[in-house]
Amino acid sequence: MSRERLYLYDTTLRDGQQTQGVQFSTADKVQIAQALDRLGIDYIEGGWPGANPTDSAFFEAAPKTRAKMTAFGMTKRAGRSAENDDVLAAVMNAGTGTVCLVGKSHDYHVEAALGITLAENTENIRASIAHIVAQGREALFDAEHFFDGYKSNPEYALEACRAAFQAGARWVVLCDTNGGTLPDEIARIVSEVIAAGIPGDRLGIHTHNDTENAVAGTLAAVEAGARQVQGTLNGLGERCGNANLTSLIPTLLLKEPYASRFDTGVSHEALVGITRISRMLDDILNRVSLRQAPYVGASAFAHKAGLHASAILKNPDTYEHIEPELVGNERIIPMSNQAGQSNLRQRLGEAGLVVGKGDPALGRILERVKAREDAGYSYDSAQASFELLARDELGQLTEHFEVERYRVISERRRNAKGQIVVESEAVVTVQFRDGSKRTGYFKNEHPQDLHDDGPVNALWQALKADLGPFQSLIDEIKLRDFKVRITNGGTEAVTRVIIDFQDGQGRRWATVGVSPNIVDASFEALLDAIRWKLIRDLQP
Amino acid sequence: MSRERLYLYDTTLRDGQQTQGVQFSTADKVQIAQALDRLGIDYIEGGWPGANPTDSAFFEAAPKTRAKMTAFGMTKRAGRSAENDDVLAAVMNAGTGTVCLVGKSHDYHVEAALGITLAENTENIRASIAHIVAQGREALFDAEHFFDGYKSNPEYALEACRAAFQAGARWVVLCDTNGGTLPDEIARIVSEVIAAGIPGDRLGIHTHNDTENAVAGTLAAVEAGARQVQGTLNGLGERCGNANLTSLIPTLLLKEPYASRFDTGVSHEALVGITRISRMLDDILNRVSLRQAPYVGASAFAHKAGLHASAILKNPDTYEHIEPELVGNERIIPMSNQAGQSNLRQRLGEAGLVVGKGDPALGRILERVKAREDAGYSYDSAQASFELLARDELGQLTEHFEVERYRVISERRRNAKGQIVVESEAVVTVQFRDGSKRTGYFKNEHPQDLHDDGPVNALWQALKADLGPFQSLIDEIKLRDFKVRITNGGTEAVTRVIIDFQDGQGRRWATVGVSPNIVDASFEALLDAIRWKLIRDLQP
Repeated sequence: MSRERLYLYDTTLRDGQQTQGVQFSTADKVQIAQALDRLGIDYIEGGWPGANPTDSAFFEAAPKTRAKMTAFGMTKRAGRSAENDDVLAAVMNAGTGTVCLVGKSHDYHVEAALGITLAENTENIRASIAHIVAQGREALFDAEHFFDGYKSNPEYALEACRAAFQAGARWVVLCDTNGGTLPDEIARIVSEVIAAGIPGDRLGIHTHNDTENAVAGTLAAVEAGARQVQGTLNGLGERCGNANLTSLIPTLLLKEPYASRFDTGVSHEALVGITRISRMLDDILNRVSLRQAPYVGASAFAHKAGLHASAILKNPDTYEHIEPELVGNERIIPMSNQAGQSNLRQRLGEAGLVVGKGDPALGRILERVKAREDAGYSYDSAQASFELLARDELGQLTEHFEVERYRVISERRRNAKGQIVVESEAVVTVQFRDGSKRTGYFKNEHPQDLHDDGPVNALWQALKADLGPFQSLIDEIKLRDFKVRITNGGTEAVTRVIIDFQDGQGRRWATVGVSPNIVDASFEALLDAIRWKLIRDLQP
Repeated sequence: MSRERLYLYDTTLRDGQQTQGVQFSTADKVQIAQALDRLGIDYIEGGWPGANPTDSAFFEAAPKTRAKMTAFGMTKRAGRSAENDDVLAAVMNAGTGTVCLVGKSHDYHVEAALGITLAENTENIRASIAHIVAQGREALFDAEHFFDGYKSNPEYALEACRAAFQAGARWVVLCDTNGGTLPDEIARIVSEVIAAGIPGDRLGIHTHNDTENAVAGTLAAVEAGARQVQGTLNGLGERCGNANLTSLIPTLLLKEPYASRFDTGVSHEALVGITRISRMLDDILNRVSLRQAPYVGASAFAHKAGLHASAILKNPDTYEHIEPELVGNERIIPMSNQAGQSNLRQRLGEAGLVVGKGDPALGRILERVKAREDAGYSYDSAQASFELLARDELGQLTEHFEVERYRVISERRRNAKGQIVVESEAVVTVQFRDGSKRTGYFKNEHPQDLHDDGPVNALWQALKADLGPFQSLIDEIKLRDFKVRITNGGTEAVTRVIIDFQDGQGRRWATVGVSPNIVDASFEALLDAIRWKLIRDLQP
């Protein structure tokens, strides 16, 4: 059988933004669009221009992509022409080569929600799509509530889709808006739509996960002939989310019958990046990544059962349906065995610490990492804090100074002019190896001039205000990112702080601190950053 | 068509325990078993007696259930009789009426992992099942790696299953152990097994979620004729988890074609408890419940898009595939910058604020919400802060006091004994409407006794230490959850703090604060909580 092209359409930036608690900034959207483009997605739906300031700003700032950047909007309203509909005009004004318009295909919604006749709705669809095409743009019609509409009134649901198709829509997207249609029914209805005259290579499928079947429903539609797949990264989306592209893409590329039948824009090389993209999105949203996520979750290739773990050592495919490396993920096997130690040696090697196979320090480091992770620490990204821990166990840790005390004050009050001001000040005293002490002090006396008037910044400035002989090495460090998460440490909630730093040579490193007290957790991470920098710069 | 019986088999207590990070205590297991029994599950797999102390202890403490309590184990090993296999004996000694034994059905695993001949393996299965039946117990055979085995050597995979069936197994359970078999393939193979002579009402299906198709694969097997469904609550399980019963059960009871075709042990009355059971399990595991979970998640019936929200107000089933009440869940219409006026009026109504359609205050409130969201606020869950904002625009906000200043100090130092201690103290001065002032003070003088020795707790304690006439209303407020996120406010990173509170009547509410300064953001949220509580309690 000759291979067919399957098109991937991402709506993370539009439908994904409907997720409760999700609010992308323009910069977030740009970063996500660039990642989607690197992955090889065909269409990136960027948002609804005119619907809110962020979406409008995104299209102004939109990165140049190989993917077709797509603006989303709705079909024109009744009683005005497509040319004179201001909502549609705002969508067109985003200037994208592709425009996707949602419209009604369910008779009940046309009459009850829009309050217009079925014929008027059909004409709105036709005229809107024709308008897009006349402007030289590629048009998509998003048939809202299509499956429920088809079950209620198949003739009208088809009429709405045919109007878009005949007006020149490149794609008619069949949406299961309420997420309640099961895969078998999706397959049957898609087949009937094709039989009714809209070819499968002009049909898209858009499902939701309300019965945990969004991925299966999408695959069922592809099986029935649809050739555009819509979804979101990590299955973001309203209610239970949209079809999860992070699961669908590996399945389409790696699993039969899809791998042999279809080409997509995603190469096997790009697929290796999908785990990183999934976690980057969680980082942007400051969400804890779902460990159990198919393909990309931290537990997706974790083998706990002793029975399984020993078989895995003999032959990985005994308990794995694909190789984790294909999606940029990794196998996790209980720490106690050989694989745990060889991973550790590799990680130490990255820090320039060469440790022999079977060195008893390896076991001690693994145990200490595990105990700290149980207490809420995470060393996945905080490589510098991990290195300090390992050096300690290896006897290769030089402490250039110790912190004797810190004290930080935050205050909110009215100033002499009656304005509310917020100020922070901090003092940090350290003792050096020769017994001498120094005290650093910082106060933001003009809070209105400073972006960060908080206690963590004050502590950071005080900590690096006076480190005597090391001052020149420390001055150049910049704090690049600061992440705070409430997590579990044993049975209690603790605060985990991860901070990214950069020095004058452009070197970047990250540290972690954990405490029930957010200030103390932050201080631990700040201190680790300086300890690491001094070791790297001063130790041979 | 006459209705058929479909049996539900829960393995939360056995396969669910393979989840990374999950470790049930005996008491946890008893509590979960009781909940499963109330729900109406047919079989509860309690664990593997003899494999670990907790599982053995559970069977000794096992509650009396209507459900069939089932012990799990493996088929006897080669070279000894079923009677003389000590591992099998430990399983039998648990004394359950039902016993499920896992065995190999994949030729490669028999030869490579067990290192025995295919004939020896078949005999082990036969003899083990016959032994269980001879003891008057109900027997299940769990055919490990069945689907991969069938694809590799269908004759042998069928031979293994037939051996169990002919030896008297009530159920032969077809397991997709690696989780890589897609639904269509599961359907085809189950059909072929039935055609080969094992009736569907003797077949179970056990899937894993490695491609996000565990639920769909289970439904495909039922469609093909299998009549026992295995899974776990919340989809717990190794790697990406098992088939999620929390999704499957509502689908089987509420959705066609299943609702009309099948009876299960779960009544519609019991189904209403499933959301509570799902969240109870998360509580036991100290996990944050997945908001997006189908049917039972807090977001499963949350409507964010303005377009959708206005339709929901007219008719809930326009954007909901089932009524949330059927599964004990509830509809949520959150605030967000996508929300329209109808969404807003509904939200205000929930707060007891009746505002007429077209009231100009609605536009002002929406604009203020949008501006605040652009600055980093989020009102999706912080309903109390939203209500304060809305009351302000509606002229219905009474400020019972104002904060004149606060000051908080955090310190880390060595105490007289040379131990590192971390302490925080705070002072808050408020002015009442009559001009009088009061100052609250708090210091955690014995930091080792307190869980939270941080500045936010100190501020909270100082803020509510002395509120004069309102003291009795404030004393009873408890802080239940504290979430911190770094987000964008305009172009700068800001800290967003969301805090959940509860009062003596069990009423819960959440507030939000935003600032570059984490202490100040927290203080804003703490203050909103008290402002809201006073309005709710003192305003008619």
